[in-house]
Amino acid sequence: MSDSLQFDRAGRLRHFLTLEGLPRDLLVRIMDTAESFTSVTEQQVKKVPLLRGKTVVNLFFENSTRTRTTFELAAKRLSADVLNVNIATSATSKGESLLDTIRNIEAMHVDMFVVRHAESGAAHFIAAHVQPHISVLNAGDGRHSHPTQAMLDMFTIRRHKGDFSRLKVAIVGDVLHSRVARSEILALNTLGAREVRVVAPRTLLPASVTGSLGVRVYHDFDQGLAGVDVIIMLRLQRERMTGAFLPSEHEYFERFGLTEARLAKAAPDVIVMHPGPINRGVEIDSRVADGPHSVILQQVSNGIAVRMAIMSLVLRGSDDAFPGVVL
Amino acid sequence: MSDSLQFDRAGRLRHFLTLEGLPRDLLVRIMDTAESFTSVTEQQVKKVPLLRGKTVVNLFFENSTRTRTTFELAAKRLSADVLNVNIATSATSKGESLLDTIRNIEAMHVDMFVVRHAESGAAHFIAAHVQPHISVLNAGDGRHSHPTQAMLDMFTIRRHKGDFSRLKVAIVGDVLHSRVARSEILALNTLGAREVRVVAPRTLLPASVTGSLGVRVYHDFDQGLAGVDVIIMLRLQRERMTGAFLPSEHEYFERFGLTEARLAKAAPDVIVMHPGPINRGVEIDSRVADGPHSVILQQVSNGIAVRMAIMSLVLRGSDDAFPGVVL
Amino acid sequence: MSDSLQFDRAGRLRHFLTLEGLPRDLLVRIMDTAESFTSVTEQQVKKVPLLRGKTVVNLFFENSTRTRTTFELAAKRLSADVLNVNIATSATSKGESLLDTIRNIEAMHVDMFVVRHAESGAAHFIAAHVQPHISVLNAGDGRHSHPTQAMLDMFTIRRHKGDFSRLKVAIVGDVLHSRVARSEILALNTLGAREVRVVAPRTLLPASVTGSLGVRVYHDFDQGLAGVDVIIMLRLQRERMTGAFLPSEHEYFERFGLTEARLAKAAPDVIVMHPGPINRGVEIDSRVADGPHSVILQQVSNGIAVRMAIMSLVLRGSDDAFPGVVL
Repeated sequence: MSDSLQFDRAGRLRHFLTLEGLPRDLLVRIMDTAESFTSVTEQQVKKVPLLRGKTVVNLFFENSTRTRTTFELAAKRLSADVLNVNIATSATSKGESLLDTIRNIEAMHVDMFVVRHAESGAAHFIAAHVQPHISVLNAGDGRHSHPTQAMLDMFTIRRHKGDFSRLKVAIVGDVLHSRVARSEILALNTLGAREVRVVAPRTLLPASVTGSLGVRVYHDFDQGLAGVDVIIMLRLQRERMTGAFLPSEHEYFERFGLTEARLAKAAPDVIVMHPGPINRGVEIDSRVADGPHSVILQQVSNGIAVRMAIMSLVLRGSDDAFPGVVL
Repeated sequence: MSDSLQFDRAGRLRHFLTLEGLPRDLLVRIMDTAESFTSVTEQQVKKVPLLRGKTVVNLFFENSTRTRTTFELAAKRLSADVLNVNIATSATSKGESLLDTIRNIEAMHVDMFVVRHAESGAAHFIAAHVQPHISVLNAGDGRHSHPTQAMLDMFTIRRHKGDFSRLKVAIVGDVLHSRVARSEILALNTLGAREVRVVAPRTLLPASVTGSLGVRVYHDFDQGLAGVDVIIMLRLQRERMTGAFLPSEHEYFERFGLTEARLAKAAPDVIVMHPGPINRGVEIDSRVADGPHSVILQQVSNGIAVRMAIMSLVLRGSDDAFPGVVL
Repeated sequence: MSDSLQFDRAGRLRHFLTLEGLPRDLLVRIMDTAESFTSVTEQQVKKVPLLRGKTVVNLFFENSTRTRTTFELAAKRLSADVLNVNIATSATSKGESLLDTIRNIEAMHVDMFVVRHAESGAAHFIAAHVQPHISVLNAGDGRHSHPTQAMLDMFTIRRHKGDFSRLKVAIVGDVLHSRVARSEILALNTLGAREVRVVAPRTLLPASVTGSLGVRVYHDFDQGLAGVDVIIMLRLQRERMTGAFLPSEHEYFERFGLTEARLAKAAPDVIVMHPGPINRGVEIDSRVADGPHSVILQQVSNGIAVRMAIMSLVLRGSDDAFPGVVL
């Protein structure tokens, strides 16, 4: 999939589909913009008029209240009108093709599609076919990528740790079924993290990751955690597992569950991240999830600011200013 | 359940969970505020900017389009952003705990949860765990309470009858399964109603009510209605009945259905109330429901104003003024 | 069904239920107003404050994401608050009657119902019972009518062809199950189209159309298309067919599918319309649907502007001005 699709002819960000091919400067710019929106979401009136009169369509081909909610809030806080379209219950049941559905909604003069789809590449496909004035945001496609989640994680790391070049980061768990792991690895490498580790049982680690540059692979959790500054836990995607990848949840927790004892192997000021929803007692112990090293809820808060930043950037072009003007 | 949970340290109303422990002055203040919003909902532009930039989350664990709609309209007329989260189709299906769901949504910097839940105490539980700046409104929990419904009924009575101290009020029907009956009795006693009667078959009357202060119990409908100024009919919660509480709908109507003949036992200017949706021909005859004594639809209208009043009070603190400023 | 229901005592349009009885001037006025809104939907800030503070309720008794979306967008671009009520999952499941549901929602001081219902006459029934300040828009009732669809089609024809008096128009396909065909015929006759043709197999043509004035009936597609300026394809309502009206989809396409070869029988500058969603390869060939004569997607765009126009007219009275004031 061509990543040049993401830029217009003037070289400005138009779609946000994958972190592949995005330069370091752009990732930094997204985080800088998100930083300015952080104050917006914490003030009394949490709205800025940047996208007033724009129409954002949440086009969800698979149900995800959590993700849909963060995009809906981000759009509303930018003063956009939001339209939620759940395709499972919609026109496709009348036999309409995906492309006809897209063509129809874009004819209503909408400005942005936020796309969630079970198939890898769906957001790219839509981006390749929309009219020039419409932007597409990938809100998760199959196992392929989930770039806004990766960016909010990068933003969370930067807010706690500052400079990436000093950091050792471990990504732990069900890499095979994770849409976010690939995006994380790309972002961390682009931002110049000192070391990116992937820690997973062999059955949950795809060959594509094992062989990729810029990643060190561990199958032993304790070794993988030694001295790291950041731990990114992945969700055990139980509902996606089709075969017998794992012996049992209990055994998984024994080998790869993040406990306080294991956390002690990491750097003393390590932060613990998780995209949620967490499976307490499966991939993470409650004492760690709710403990002093956890920044899991700050990831959620940061997710609104990062999505506001990306929405603003793609709809207004990357050389616009983003004054913190309040309605 | 502690009712002190409802106030902050400065003694101002923060949550609205139950009428237990709320002083008469506060109930009067809610009604006075609702009175000012009544004019807002009747004018051409039905919006005031009081909650602009605030985010209200309708967190519904059981489906109730009717109740959700009144809160959604009340919030929108206060210029708040509204997020509808139907939990039945949401993250809990991925095995997330209630508390994790709450923590996640509050991390998105929302301001208010409107909670509907089949379990008694759910709204209290959530209120006990949210961050200090967040307010919780109970939109009905199990058989426990439905305080906004009770307040809109009090407001409706006051608009028609004025002074509570002269009033005899009969609450009639399925008290056992009603979330609103308890809240009504509390409110009427706090507001100093002259007499509160409960009229119900023995099988639909819980011991807790029979033994409570400030209520006279009747098992004969005609005796219970004699001379009352206000009749509050309860809905026959057929869908909640698990056993054989009642012989048949027909027989129920014979004994406890409100007909014109029975209405004649009450005071000549009696008003008839019902929380809706009504079962015509089961608990109430259509000629009464649609007749001159019925104020059932005015209850619905008043429900918007009362919910606007409560939302404003909890989010802005009880010593703020509420000017009728129009956008 | 009386069409006088649509006007108030001062003769101004109050409801929009059917095109029956609407004078030519009013149809022209709707199109002129829509023309002014076309520029609104194409500018950067796509909102006008005409319906600020008004509450529009989408009351959908049958699922139609596509139609609901166009009304929701139209209302939001007029700055109205929108409430989506899906009745299939709502109070009627608690045994409430349609009229009680309507009475309840109107008591919330709403301003407009947009009604979609599987039964013919449902929107009329509701319009006959709402309070004087409330308007009802028919968003499709049974096989009876779909007047906003017909008006957006007229508007689309006018934008491409100008004067109706020179035009030959063919309506092609499943007339029997179409809610839009009747409305189209009425509108075309009112607007003075030179010739209105209906082209359909005998099994898909109701006697009411065959015998009606102002229509020429063709059972042969090629004859029906000869020299026409406008082709309005109807959707093959497969999901509504109960019996064996058709031999097979393939055979239907052979006889009534619009192909490039057939299109050559029409006037050289013919336009091809379809209400969507299209069944490619059943009633229309993809080369025609996506070809230079197709205006199918412009119909969708025009649908927003036409619905904005009708909403404005019924809520503000037909002698108001509609300045293109931008928020």
